[in-house]
Amino acid sequence: MSTASTALNYRAIRQARRPQGRPTAADFEIVSSPIPTLAPGEILVRNLAQSVDPYMREAMHWGGWEKGFGLEGRALGRVVASKDPVIAEGSIVFHRHSWATHAVVAKADIRVLTVPEGVPLTAYLGILGGTGLTAYVGLKRVAELQPGEDLFISAAGGGVGTAAARIARVMGAGRLIGSTGSSTKAKHLMEHIGFDAAIDYHAATPLADQLRAAAPDGIDVYFDNVGGTHLEAAISILRHSGRIAWCGAVAQYDDLENPPAAPANLYDIVGKALRLEGFLVRDHLDAREEFESFLIPHIISGAVPVDETIVHGFGNTVDAFVAMLGGGNVGKMVVTFEES
Amino acid sequence: MSTASTALNYRAIRQARRPQGRPTAADFEIVSSPIPTLAPGEILVRNLAQSVDPYMREAMHWGGWEKGFGLEGRALGRVVASKDPVIAEGSIVFHRHSWATHAVVAKADIRVLTVPEGVPLTAYLGILGGTGLTAYVGLKRVAELQPGEDLFISAAGGGVGTAAARIARVMGAGRLIGSTGSSTKAKHLMEHIGFDAAIDYHAATPLADQLRAAAPDGIDVYFDNVGGTHLEAAISILRHSGRIAWCGAVAQYDDLENPPAAPANLYDIVGKALRLEGFLVRDHLDAREEFESFLIPHIISGAVPVDETIVHGFGNTVDAFVAMLGGGNVGKMVVTFEES
Repeated sequence: MSTASTALNYRAIRQARRPQGRPTAADFEIVSSPIPTLAPGEILVRNLAQSVDPYMREAMHWGGWEKGFGLEGRALGRVVASKDPVIAEGSIVFHRHSWATHAVVAKADIRVLTVPEGVPLTAYLGILGGTGLTAYVGLKRVAELQPGEDLFISAAGGGVGTAAARIARVMGAGRLIGSTGSSTKAKHLMEHIGFDAAIDYHAATPLADQLRAAAPDGIDVYFDNVGGTHLEAAISILRHSGRIAWCGAVAQYDDLENPPAAPANLYDIVGKALRLEGFLVRDHLDAREEFESFLIPHIISGAVPVDETIVHGFGNTVDAFVAMLGGGNVGKMVVTFEES
Repeated sequence: MSTASTALNYRAIRQARRPQGRPTAADFEIVSSPIPTLAPGEILVRNLAQSVDPYMREAMHWGGWEKGFGLEGRALGRVVASKDPVIAEGSIVFHRHSWATHAVVAKADIRVLTVPEGVPLTAYLGILGGTGLTAYVGLKRVAELQPGEDLFISAAGGGVGTAAARIARVMGAGRLIGSTGSSTKAKHLMEHIGFDAAIDYHAATPLADQLRAAAPDGIDVYFDNVGGTHLEAAISILRHSGRIAWCGAVAQYDDLENPPAAPANLYDIVGKALRLEGFLVRDHLDAREEFESFLIPHIISGAVPVDETIVHGFGNTVDAFVAMLGGGNVGKMVVTFEES
């Protein structure tokens, strides 16, 4: 493929309307457009894989789709044409202009990857991408997890949840407890992801009771991906000086106007001298180099497996996104695209 | 006074019943008992001054008064008899066995004070005591207040609140905003304690609106002494990466079984990457030396005035305590005792 290929069409997924509650296929449409001729400095990327993430649900609610803004998402691709003197055709790059088969980008929009032997490319959308960086920053910088400390992770089967478990393990964490939305996934977390205990928050037993049974001696750190009743249950079993790293809130994304009630036991934050700290990974991009140096050797050695659920085919992107919101994945949900 | 004086009586205030809501005089009684003969190692202290503090309200609810345990409180006194070889008669000491005219203590129970020239003794119950240490730890260790940062303090007229304002000022804080329970006290805070703005939370205008008007550009740090709607209002105006040092909750002490509702905007802790951290000063007693080295020069120079409301007379202790709970003080509430 060369610059001559710019006569071809590319496909992009557009938001057709604001989703009400859980998004459906009818909220989106696929549009086909000619690939434009590249101007000087422009780079044409053929996307190979795309990430679908919880934060996109919020962007669909608040974002500028009514003004015709396209959807954005993290993607990996191959440079198929370049009018930039530095970026070579054939380079493998990371960028944020997906929900499309191709992207026309500038050098400032991409990061050229050098993928080490033994590291799968899709890891750069998951445990080596923003997902893994989120888990690392939450554990290392926010919660300041120490070796031997016991950790509870909510949305434990998701991309951030599984990454947090894997990273916590190689950081020397003590007991790992996870919560997830089915008994099948809870079993999977214990058998395949390395959790010492996992609870199903849809079970009849109240979450706080299940959590107390799973962690009878309490926990030191809670990695919160959901808020709401999970946060309340975690506060009830956190030990003195415990920390909560609060990262987004998957549970809220379907009803963004009505966040769940704050925990009734919030005042225990004083009594137990707890720390509740929210964080956004975009405030911590300076941690990436330290993070990669730490994690890549563990991936190559096999100590940290790359947990992912891969859906193949650009046309299945929306289905993968909706399934991810419904908890239909274990590990990072990634969509790989056919090469054309 | 010598050991011969142990034939005298001393007076102590006992809790007569568990207070319902705001305590009243009828919840207490004064008992008179002979001062016991000192055993080896024992020290008799004639109390000179006592602190009355919000935390005592909680102790009255949960404490062991039904089992005959006496009330405890921070006090300053003079050693009038000593069977300890190291502690000399005449020493000025700090201890925690007050709500009484005298205390029989061991060396481990007391701290001998060397009061520098220019420092009033009662400061050791206020800005140089646990009250000031609470303010210092909250600002320095918990909130990590930086020079130029804007600070909101609730219960701003109380012992901790005034100490936090004075200490923040010499730490180089930017704008200081306080909340208090009357317009008279709000005026006093601005005219005499150094607040740039002060709001009356009993006024008709909702607290959040008043706070937004007082801090139109937001705040970096909230020193929370009350929780509840104050916490919610502070979250609404905190800037990105803001911190909340949460220290007890005066507003809750009259209804300990029913803490106020948690803030409805708690999820903003994630969106603004805020840190909400509870703390107990007893976890930070190792900071005392650093704290005294920092603060005493500012007290001697006059940069930090000793804000206190002094009530004279042991018999007025309960009245002072109840008045303090009702906000009848500016600065630390201290009871000084007649020398007998």
